[in-house]
Amino acid sequence: MLMSPEITPGGYTPPERRLLGPGPSDISTRVLQALAKPTIGYLDPSFVGMMEELKALLRYSFQTRNALTFPVSGPGSAGMEMCFVNLVNPGDKVIVCRNGVFGGRMVENVERCGGIPVIVDDVWGTPVDPQKVADAFRQHPDACVLAFVHAETSTGALSDADTLCRIAREHDALTIVDTVTSLGGVPVLVDQWRADAVYSGSQKCLSCTPGLSPITFSERAVDTVKGRNRKSQSWFLDLNLLLGYWGETTRTYHHTAPTNSLYALHEALRVLQQEGLENAWARHRSNHLALKAGLAELGIEFVVAEDARLPQVNSIHIPGGLDDKQVRGALLQQHGIEIGAGLGALAGKIWRIGLMGYSSRVENVIACLNAMESVLMAQGVKAEPGSAVAAAYRAYAAQATAR
Amino acid sequence: MLMSPEITPGGYTPPERRLLGPGPSDISTRVLQALAKPTIGYLDPSFVGMMEELKALLRYSFQTRNALTFPVSGPGSAGMEMCFVNLVNPGDKVIVCRNGVFGGRMVENVERCGGIPVIVDDVWGTPVDPQKVADAFRQHPDACVLAFVHAETSTGALSDADTLCRIAREHDALTIVDTVTSLGGVPVLVDQWRADAVYSGSQKCLSCTPGLSPITFSERAVDTVKGRNRKSQSWFLDLNLLLGYWGETTRTYHHTAPTNSLYALHEALRVLQQEGLENAWARHRSNHLALKAGLAELGIEFVVAEDARLPQVNSIHIPGGLDDKQVRGALLQQHGIEIGAGLGALAGKIWRIGLMGYSSRVENVIACLNAMESVLMAQGVKAEPGSAVAAAYRAYAAQATAR
Repeated sequence: MLMSPEITPGGYTPPERRLLGPGPSDISTRVLQALAKPTIGYLDPSFVGMMEELKALLRYSFQTRNALTFPVSGPGSAGMEMCFVNLVNPGDKVIVCRNGVFGGRMVENVERCGGIPVIVDDVWGTPVDPQKVADAFRQHPDACVLAFVHAETSTGALSDADTLCRIAREHDALTIVDTVTSLGGVPVLVDQWRADAVYSGSQKCLSCTPGLSPITFSERAVDTVKGRNRKSQSWFLDLNLLLGYWGETTRTYHHTAPTNSLYALHEALRVLQQEGLENAWARHRSNHLALKAGLAELGIEFVVAEDARLPQVNSIHIPGGLDDKQVRGALLQQHGIEIGAGLGALAGKIWRIGLMGYSSRVENVIACLNAMESVLMAQGVKAEPGSAVAAAYRAYAAQATAR
Repeated sequence: MLMSPEITPGGYTPPERRLLGPGPSDISTRVLQALAKPTIGYLDPSFVGMMEELKALLRYSFQTRNALTFPVSGPGSAGMEMCFVNLVNPGDKVIVCRNGVFGGRMVENVERCGGIPVIVDDVWGTPVDPQKVADAFRQHPDACVLAFVHAETSTGALSDADTLCRIAREHDALTIVDTVTSLGGVPVLVDQWRADAVYSGSQKCLSCTPGLSPITFSERAVDTVKGRNRKSQSWFLDLNLLLGYWGETTRTYHHTAPTNSLYALHEALRVLQQEGLENAWARHRSNHLALKAGLAELGIEFVVAEDARLPQVNSIHIPGGLDDKQVRGALLQQHGIEIGAGLGALAGKIWRIGLMGYSSRVENVIACLNAMESVLMAQGVKAEPGSAVAAAYRAYAAQATAR
């Protein structure tokens, strides 16, 4: 027998944190308690009833009537891969918009499915340019799929999904849309856009635990999946098999569903439903405006232009001379606040302050500004003590007056 | 805006169940409470420390020193697919042993990777025949991988992993071993077997929530993965990318780790460590023997011969004339007990009584026998009331005397 390892006595207790990065976001006690309810079987009639409610709640949050709407048993990147392995066949031409890390991941997915990516590049921090997409379709009229990221988590830029989906339809192409960071934070209107395959994540603006990826497929996309003449390269993500469990009529075993995470998602979606989607969007915007007002007092500038700025991912330039890791370390160690680093080409150049879901609260905006001011001033940044928080409160007051 | 759906007020509350099917198993309050601890960031230094303990605890449960040992962010079928997509290339010949549903799933995986499966069939309910495997290698000396299921969840049969791995080594082939149902219930000795890629599930004898798949790769398997000259067909399951997050030196973002499920797995493995692997195996055996003694009083026969019988999956023939669904329905509705149905070719012919992990307790054996006796007698089965439970207690007493 191999020796038993030495483990910290008493079990693991996570430190207290405010999660103000690009996900996971803070999770309410209500959702954590749902997570911890006793596990039951994934074919239990009671559980199956809960699944139906879960699907209905997801349809509400996606604003769709799509029958095929359910959470994939894996993180957002599994949801992404589910869309590609079911809709892209070897030799298929796919127009992929790349204006950040996740567009790049879509390119990887196309390649690994044996597809041919036609890449439409935009500067990181800017939205996808619809004109370039239209041009790409003109140059590649045989492209059968358009893939793009609605809300680029790596940059904080929001793209015009409505227009992009329209362009794809004009060229009879299906759309694959990443709404990992947008769902619940800004309008995601699947039916209005007439998007075909849309995936998201549980741990951003839904404020559920990480590990689930809600997806929804239009009837057109489902027909494509059902009409495949070769099996999907993934067994785990094969929609034709998964329909047997999550579909309308049967409940056939495919894999063991992550019961407890699904309880939590059900509760997180109830929270969203009770607040109302429009109120949730307004709250994200309100807290963003207050944060922005405060950050301006610290001389901090946003990466993304105002008209494409995500309220839930505040990407900001690291002020000149400051050490990325040192500042983030001080925020974490001294203030218990996690903010996000830059990814890929933006590593070391930007920070990403997430105000997502349950993290998008007044107290977090204020705590973040207080902490930022304290840490930045200790690093030599000039600012009027208390001015950031004061500006945030003025922004909240102005919003109240405007209503 | 689409209408908000009508949802049961007050949220979802699962009914009380004893999970005596083939997984998920009952989860202790201790593990459920760990699950509900506050979410923190997956790159938080505190979280990273917990990850290292988790890897050490998994090495203990797998009895391996393999550096590459971690939980995949998905169910067992994702763990299975991770092994295949990283080790099997198009054109590779893979010997796959099929003595139940999960061997068949392995065949699917080989095919979807473009590999050529050489199928070694054995009757469902029997273990894999090593002689047939040796013969297959003689007929296909170019086979580079042997894949088999250690503990077939669909039948309850245990195969001789030690011998099978030795045969593969003699032919210089890697092994992919499914230990989803065996880990924690019967000896899984990865280093002693010199197995190469071994995956399991969280929701069986580890009694953690469903949704994670512990895996471990030998150095030889890791070298194969690192030496690939084409990318794995899956981005989500690409070990060369995942090594950046779960590996020894770096903690690079790949996907958002399922934080809370990992807390729970850490705690479930601490529970196992505190009991001790050998004690856990002995407990599974003890409760199986008591159940067996009780079932004999009800005239119930096992599917698998005694020498290959899994103590944690008790596959039994449905007594003649009884209605499968009616009996399972009565157990669930009247007694809150879930037992498993037959899968695939065995559907409607067998039941599977799981005594896995935290479900493998005296009180569950007794409750199960009382409920079975009551439901079967109501269906006309002749038995002496109370005899099943009495036999179980005699079996426990005999074990106590023997020690």
